[in-house]
Amino acid sequence: MSALDAALQFARDNHPRFLDEYRALLALPSISTLPEHKQDVLDTADWVAAQLREHGMTEVEIVPTAGHPIIFASWLGAPGKPTVLVYGHYDVQPVDPLNEWESGPFAGEIRGDYIFARGASDMKGQIFAQIKALESLVKTGQCPVNIKYMIEGEEEIGSPNLQPFIEANLDRLKADFVLNCDAGIHSPDVPAITYSLRGLAYFELEIRTAAKDMHSGLFGGSVYNPIHVLAELIAGMHDAQGRVTLPGFYDRVRELDAEERALLQRVPYSDERWQTMTGTQALYGEAGYSTIERVGARPTLEVNGIWGGFIEEGAKTVLPARASAKISTRLVADQRPEEIYGILKAHLETRMPAGIDWRLHQHSCGAGAIMDRKSAYMQSAEAALKTVFGKDPIFKREGGSVPVVSMLQQKLGIDSIMLGFALPDDGIHGPNERQYLPNFYRGIDTYIHFLLSL
Amino acid sequence: MSALDAALQFARDNHPRFLDEYRALLALPSISTLPEHKQDVLDTADWVAAQLREHGMTEVEIVPTAGHPIIFASWLGAPGKPTVLVYGHYDVQPVDPLNEWESGPFAGEIRGDYIFARGASDMKGQIFAQIKALESLVKTGQCPVNIKYMIEGEEEIGSPNLQPFIEANLDRLKADFVLNCDAGIHSPDVPAITYSLRGLAYFELEIRTAAKDMHSGLFGGSVYNPIHVLAELIAGMHDAQGRVTLPGFYDRVRELDAEERALLQRVPYSDERWQTMTGTQALYGEAGYSTIERVGARPTLEVNGIWGGFIEEGAKTVLPARASAKISTRLVADQRPEEIYGILKAHLETRMPAGIDWRLHQHSCGAGAIMDRKSAYMQSAEAALKTVFGKDPIFKREGGSVPVVSMLQQKLGIDSIMLGFALPDDGIHGPNERQYLPNFYRGIDTYIHFLLSL
Repeated sequence: MSALDAALQFARDNHPRFLDEYRALLALPSISTLPEHKQDVLDTADWVAAQLREHGMTEVEIVPTAGHPIIFASWLGAPGKPTVLVYGHYDVQPVDPLNEWESGPFAGEIRGDYIFARGASDMKGQIFAQIKALESLVKTGQCPVNIKYMIEGEEEIGSPNLQPFIEANLDRLKADFVLNCDAGIHSPDVPAITYSLRGLAYFELEIRTAAKDMHSGLFGGSVYNPIHVLAELIAGMHDAQGRVTLPGFYDRVRELDAEERALLQRVPYSDERWQTMTGTQALYGEAGYSTIERVGARPTLEVNGIWGGFIEEGAKTVLPARASAKISTRLVADQRPEEIYGILKAHLETRMPAGIDWRLHQHSCGAGAIMDRKSAYMQSAEAALKTVFGKDPIFKREGGSVPVVSMLQQKLGIDSIMLGFALPDDGIHGPNERQYLPNFYRGIDTYIHFLLSL
Repeated sequence: MSALDAALQFARDNHPRFLDEYRALLALPSISTLPEHKQDVLDTADWVAAQLREHGMTEVEIVPTAGHPIIFASWLGAPGKPTVLVYGHYDVQPVDPLNEWESGPFAGEIRGDYIFARGASDMKGQIFAQIKALESLVKTGQCPVNIKYMIEGEEEIGSPNLQPFIEANLDRLKADFVLNCDAGIHSPDVPAITYSLRGLAYFELEIRTAAKDMHSGLFGGSVYNPIHVLAELIAGMHDAQGRVTLPGFYDRVRELDAEERALLQRVPYSDERWQTMTGTQALYGEAGYSTIERVGARPTLEVNGIWGGFIEEGAKTVLPARASAKISTRLVADQRPEEIYGILKAHLETRMPAGIDWRLHQHSCGAGAIMDRKSAYMQSAEAALKTVFGKDPIFKREGGSVPVVSMLQQKLGIDSIMLGFALPDDGIHGPNERQYLPNFYRGIDTYIHFLLSL
């Protein structure tokens, strides 16, 4: 039996155990943004590190950072072969609104072909499929390449401590390319490789118009209402064509050329499917671009949260003193996230009425990235997908942000192969996040094929 | 010693005990809008009813309603004298934001000339001063008029059960006029009588654009963001002159004539004082009107609360499915609150983008009112204020809403004398609500003078 067949057979024989372990991983509520889950995050790091140790990694370390730790592991027993740096994250998003989950967000309930849990798709399911591919290779022979792991616990809060870690470990992280598992395909029948990612710059704006909340009857109509001011500002951030109005926002944006627009045209897409996926009755976006272009190749600005005044049940006749919003921008290649704070701030300075206190805070930022669609490693990934799925993968641009991709491009000088098996309708970051289980198993097979073909 | 001197002397001698009792009343957290305070509201009704029983009321009943009970009491032992219906409420607003209180909201801490507590000014301090005037009269002789009390527990949630109570008790409530203690004066040196009140119509708007929250990277820029939609709608509710844009909103508004504008000019006012009181750096309102006119004689629309998406600490890259706002209008004489729902709904129907689910809910509404400035009872109140404060009171329009005034005008055909001693900078409905204690004592004296002069 070839090394390939042996590994594939081992994986197949162990599907039930792999699924049990996957559910055990999903049961750990590693919500990185909520301080009360700090210990859960640590427990998850331990759990993942134990897996890597068990599957032959010679060096496994849980490296403390100023926030949540980073797992580093390596095995360099394949001289002459390429060195792959596997990237992933073991943290997850919060689970609110909790009442919209049909089963517990950490229960890992299986309904039909899906497993439901926070992190099932983003991205415990992906990194764990890769680890199970490693196990299948190691337990039936040995890993065919030199391999390193860098699995962080702060991706969902913008990876604040990843760059310092990378800068302090440039030699240790040295590799030929990155296998980034935080990725997805287009649909169960359409394998895909993402070659472009959007960057992110996330802000919080607080507006304060008065020293304290007031009675809306006694003072309403005589002073600024911070909610009105905030609403005006937010309304003014887009024009009637759905374009962002911040001066300078589009200055560095790389416009799509005809060749790439044609390539993106090949991504299977229908309005109907998009609306079903999002549960919307209407699509809306920047004029002059298709939906695929809007989410992959165009920068956007979204308000992620807003609050002010009385927000409990009932009626309180308060004229609030403060209102706040979380505002994030998604950036495309060539836009510089570190410039966006200044662009937003300048816009607000122009629009803000006089006599109002306000504060703009930057939560996080990371650049977008574009990878070479024709590199040798990209071709190996393409072939592995074709073999497992029986179809040529499409190449696509991803609307989400994976800041580590541009970070590793800049710091280590290496490209990332985005190879993961999440689906667009997995509901990541929302309630009832799920993973399509057949993709979990095909993912294991694809990683086996890929690593053996290098 | 005259009945007047005896009652005033009794009050003075009992100031320390009155203050202790006032603090005991403030210690009861009778927040009518929060279900968890239901028992506290009941306890407060019991406490107030016990006071009335102790001070000679022959009929004291705590009347259950669909919500919180109404206290009714009467004493009719002064044949040939007018019958006064005293109105008040024993419920209070919520206390959030709790962290902005310098002492416990129910501690009744005294600092300098002020007592700090939720309800100190709105309006436990006022109704309790009236009850202590009653005690002073009764304990030194007898009450000089026939007197009835109607003290409700739902004023702060829009008095949903008051109108049914009034309609079911028209005979029992029969009186010559209403003494409404839910009122204030202009400043410690400027006594005042309110002859006009604004009405209120309070709504909640919910916008839903998608079935569930989504990832802002994967879907941002391709579907409606409900926060953007809501912000556009709110921004569109006022024009650049600060006027409300809802078609029909101003149709019934009684415009100020030159005589009344001149009268309101006499209300002591300075921008500086208004800004100090509100803690604002700038004033803002409808063009063409003074601040006094804006809050007293012009209708306004204020968003009292807004929420949507991720509003906890940190950064969550969510594209929310829903956003909501609490929106209230303050109405002036002749505007019909029951028409405002239709006016707001029609406006939203015109402005709402297609394909968005939304729901407009009405929380409560009540009309504004204007009273005869020259009636005999009004003159008695004027004289009592002049005697105690040593100055002619000003006549003013109140920006707040006291729906009971128009309700009693309509149902019983009697006007209300608004006689209370709150101050504009008492911070009612906000943190650190306070009552100026000298006004509490002068209030007792004024009520004694007033009742004896009828």
